[in-house]
Amino acid sequence: MSIRVTVWGENVHEQKNKVVAEVYPLTMHGTIAASLNKSEGITASTVTLQDVEHGLTAEKLAATDVLIWWGHAAHGDVDDKVVERVCEAVWGGMGIIFLHSAHFAKPFKRLMGAPCNLSWREAGERERLWVTSRQHPIAAGLPDHFELEYEEMYGEPFGVPEPLETVFISWFAGGEVFRSGLTYKRGAGNIFYFRPGHETYPTYHDGNVQRVISNAVRWAYNPNVRIANPGDAPNTPVDKALEPITERGPRLHHDGEAGYR
Amino acid sequence: MSIRVTVWGENVHEQKNKVVAEVYPLTMHGTIAASLNKSEGITASTVTLQDVEHGLTAEKLAATDVLIWWGHAAHGDVDDKVVERVCEAVWGGMGIIFLHSAHFAKPFKRLMGAPCNLSWREAGERERLWVTSRQHPIAAGLPDHFELEYEEMYGEPFGVPEPLETVFISWFAGGEVFRSGLTYKRGAGNIFYFRPGHETYPTYHDGNVQRVISNAVRWAYNPNVRIANPGDAPNTPVDKALEPITERGPRLHHDGEAGYR
Amino acid sequence: MSIRVTVWGENVHEQKNKVVAEVYPLTMHGTIAASLNKSEGITASTVTLQDVEHGLTAEKLAATDVLIWWGHAAHGDVDDKVVERVCEAVWGGMGIIFLHSAHFAKPFKRLMGAPCNLSWREAGERERLWVTSRQHPIAAGLPDHFELEYEEMYGEPFGVPEPLETVFISWFAGGEVFRSGLTYKRGAGNIFYFRPGHETYPTYHDGNVQRVISNAVRWAYNPNVRIANPGDAPNTPVDKALEPITERGPRLHHDGEAGYR
Amino acid sequence: MSIRVTVWGENVHEQKNKVVAEVYPLTMHGTIAASLNKSEGITASTVTLQDVEHGLTAEKLAATDVLIWWGHAAHGDVDDKVVERVCEAVWGGMGIIFLHSAHFAKPFKRLMGAPCNLSWREAGERERLWVTSRQHPIAAGLPDHFELEYEEMYGEPFGVPEPLETVFISWFAGGEVFRSGLTYKRGAGNIFYFRPGHETYPTYHDGNVQRVISNAVRWAYNPNVRIANPGDAPNTPVDKALEPITERGPRLHHDGEAGYR
Repeated sequence: MSIRVTVWGENVHEQKNKVVAEVYPLTMHGTIAASLNKSEGITASTVTLQDVEHGLTAEKLAATDVLIWWGHAAHGDVDDKVVERVCEAVWGGMGIIFLHSAHFAKPFKRLMGAPCNLSWREAGERERLWVTSRQHPIAAGLPDHFELEYEEMYGEPFGVPEPLETVFISWFAGGEVFRSGLTYKRGAGNIFYFRPGHETYPTYHDGNVQRVISNAVRWAYNPNVRIANPGDAPNTPVDKALEPITERGPRLHHDGEAGYR
Repeated sequence: MSIRVTVWGENVHEQKNKVVAEVYPLTMHGTIAASLNKSEGITASTVTLQDVEHGLTAEKLAATDVLIWWGHAAHGDVDDKVVERVCEAVWGGMGIIFLHSAHFAKPFKRLMGAPCNLSWREAGERERLWVTSRQHPIAAGLPDHFELEYEEMYGEPFGVPEPLETVFISWFAGGEVFRSGLTYKRGAGNIFYFRPGHETYPTYHDGNVQRVISNAVRWAYNPNVRIANPGDAPNTPVDKALEPITERGPRLHHDGEAGYR
Repeated sequence: MSIRVTVWGENVHEQKNKVVAEVYPLTMHGTIAASLNKSEGITASTVTLQDVEHGLTAEKLAATDVLIWWGHAAHGDVDDKVVERVCEAVWGGMGIIFLHSAHFAKPFKRLMGAPCNLSWREAGERERLWVTSRQHPIAAGLPDHFELEYEEMYGEPFGVPEPLETVFISWFAGGEVFRSGLTYKRGAGNIFYFRPGHETYPTYHDGNVQRVISNAVRWAYNPNVRIANPGDAPNTPVDKALEPITERGPRLHHDGEAGYR
Repeated sequence: MSIRVTVWGENVHEQKNKVVAEVYPLTMHGTIAASLNKSEGITASTVTLQDVEHGLTAEKLAATDVLIWWGHAAHGDVDDKVVERVCEAVWGGMGIIFLHSAHFAKPFKRLMGAPCNLSWREAGERERLWVTSRQHPIAAGLPDHFELEYEEMYGEPFGVPEPLETVFISWFAGGEVFRSGLTYKRGAGNIFYFRPGHETYPTYHDGNVQRVISNAVRWAYNPNVRIANPGDAPNTPVDKALEPITERGPRLHHDGEAGYR
């Protein structure tokens, strides 16, 4: 059994910007999926913003173990209904990996509940990523640091919640630092944010970056059956209580009532 | 200088339900505010769902150090614009305390990014809260446990993110447990969730509960100046970089561009 | 390739106490190992306090992927040198699982850096464990709660550091609660504390308990090569710096010096 | 009422090394204490390694709200009994701040339960500290980053447990990063690690560094009464259980027994 990965690509700059098209002739999502398909035990497909329902129908999400999200220029074009559907899938147990400028993607902001702010500079400067959580599964097989010669800078403060674990921190030639690899869990779903990947640089052709992404897929994968309605708030009636209790005091709710939302 | 607290009350069951009106002749929010106003260094006022903009205008939020939120029957009636305004204020540094059924309030779900699910039973059963983080400021002056003779049960799993700290865990007579006091930080804002407070029981007249709430106000209070636009993502141009760097490689953005959102 | 588990048993009450010997004719560690050996992909052996170096020689630890620790009556008899060796192995990447009264075992206290206090009562009362982190790998295949009809009570406050994740919380018939399943990472080593397992009750014969332990073994297992000297603090000389820098200012250390410890 | 701070200084290099004596004519601990004594509401005194019991008698610790620790060359000379006494005080509620090379001080290693490893280089290079937790009380009044022109480098991986909050991350000219400000709680005691402060550089004369330390003192201060024996594990007898239960099954312990340690 393979881990089924869906790579979601915004697919805007690949079509409009010559430089991006040249760096990523297979598109960015296509490049990421092609690399994942060389990893044993992973089967990756792609969908894009332009697909019907952005390619993220209920059926597609049900058949996705881990979703990877890259977006930048068109965050606002993503349908709020699809965002809710993606979040529901995550809460039910689907893994999700957000790349680079997806820090401002709607599902990331929705899952973080935070401003997700940062500072930035597009100058093709050197980024060096340091592993901060030794032998973390997402860092398996990596050296203790690696470099990307050309990258966009993202700087702290990064307005995200304190993570479960900080896996990478980046050094930038211009003087900034950034928490570049962060893990979270929301509902039953594992979430990983990974910083590198500006579209004008060949970041997703880099072997270390590809390894981080395939490691993260394995880390985020939850083999359990998806929880159907993760937000359900079931009533446990008095006569089904695990310990014998007697109902006391005034009541607001009626028997069998669903509760307020 | 006093800490300025605003208690937001849904104010529905106090008006419609005889039992609630009798238990809380001052309303629930009024009871909480009256108790806080007896605490040195705290000045509390109230607003309700029925007020213009639910009482949470930009001016009111700017004059609020800590917001307390109680809602249950009318979560869906809260205007999404007000929810965003409240979250922006939290990210900028306003403290916020969510009580009981506010686990499904829009701003709580928005700040948690999680399903916030739980199980529940309205049977007037005994709840016993245990302090799990010794001498946490929110537990100051409390015994190592205290009881509420009549409460609604909330049971695990509670679908919230792993907290910064678990301050209280509840035991219920019917056999369930619940993480009853949880701390978070989102942006610059401190967040506390506190479980007790079903509207048909006299929970907010209880001295220990009142102490938790006044402690939590002091804990959540951030004396710094509010951050005006916490989601801003400023560009740091190459010629203002802290270390001298030279621009390299292709560019996507133009000088002075604001970046995508 | 199997995960190599070593179950460390104190092996005192099995020898001295008739009740314990009857409940665990194979000893406690023997029972735990026998159960693990029925799990696919796990090979378990046992060692005891009475073995030379308590069975935890450098060779044995090098051949152990995950160590399980049960102790109670003889914590003080464990040699401090063995404790340091175990902690070094954990820091280098060996997984470790502490069971029940091992909350006061020397290696647990050493790895937690905390008092590890709790309250307790031996009354054969009902314990009910609730899963608090939905679909956590350690809870895979379990219902949302399960019961142990006869257990010793452990009560909060439990004096351990805030965990990475709280996986289980226990309810006790006598009115207490306890965080019963907690995850940590120290150095490269994954750590799990699991509460149940008083020696006079048949806890380790319980199917749910056995499943938690085998799940925890898989969760704690780190397939990377063990880090040889996890406490090393290497000097990076100026001429090997990743970015060109010039030495400036006064110096305390000499070239090639090891640094202070 | 003032917060009573004790600054513990190793006081070795100030006596032996000319450069250090010139940079810190008042000694390092003396300089830190003098700066703190200019902060409203803080009263600081100093003790040193050379004092009887290193100046950390039971009486002195009882009169200390927050202890600050700087050591480097003589970690091994600190008496293990004093280390245990310090840890007990922390677990009971005393705040503690570890500075720079105290990452290898005995009480820090004891409280972390981790290898506390890092990489290092003494080259007088530029360090830039970025605030990563916006408006954290320890960063109050600071800009979003500040620089120390001459500092020793410490590089990741830093072998400490995942903190409650990461407050600062450092950028170094030579290409490394380091988590420079980390918060922890152990027992009832608040702990802060702060990286800067190599003895040959004037770091503790820097206004921003002084502000971090005085902020950290206020953050770490716990106004509650110190817990006398934080490691106590009290027995709760059956007849004093909070809920009526009946003793069942076999017993190991006798009435009134203290339990094993």
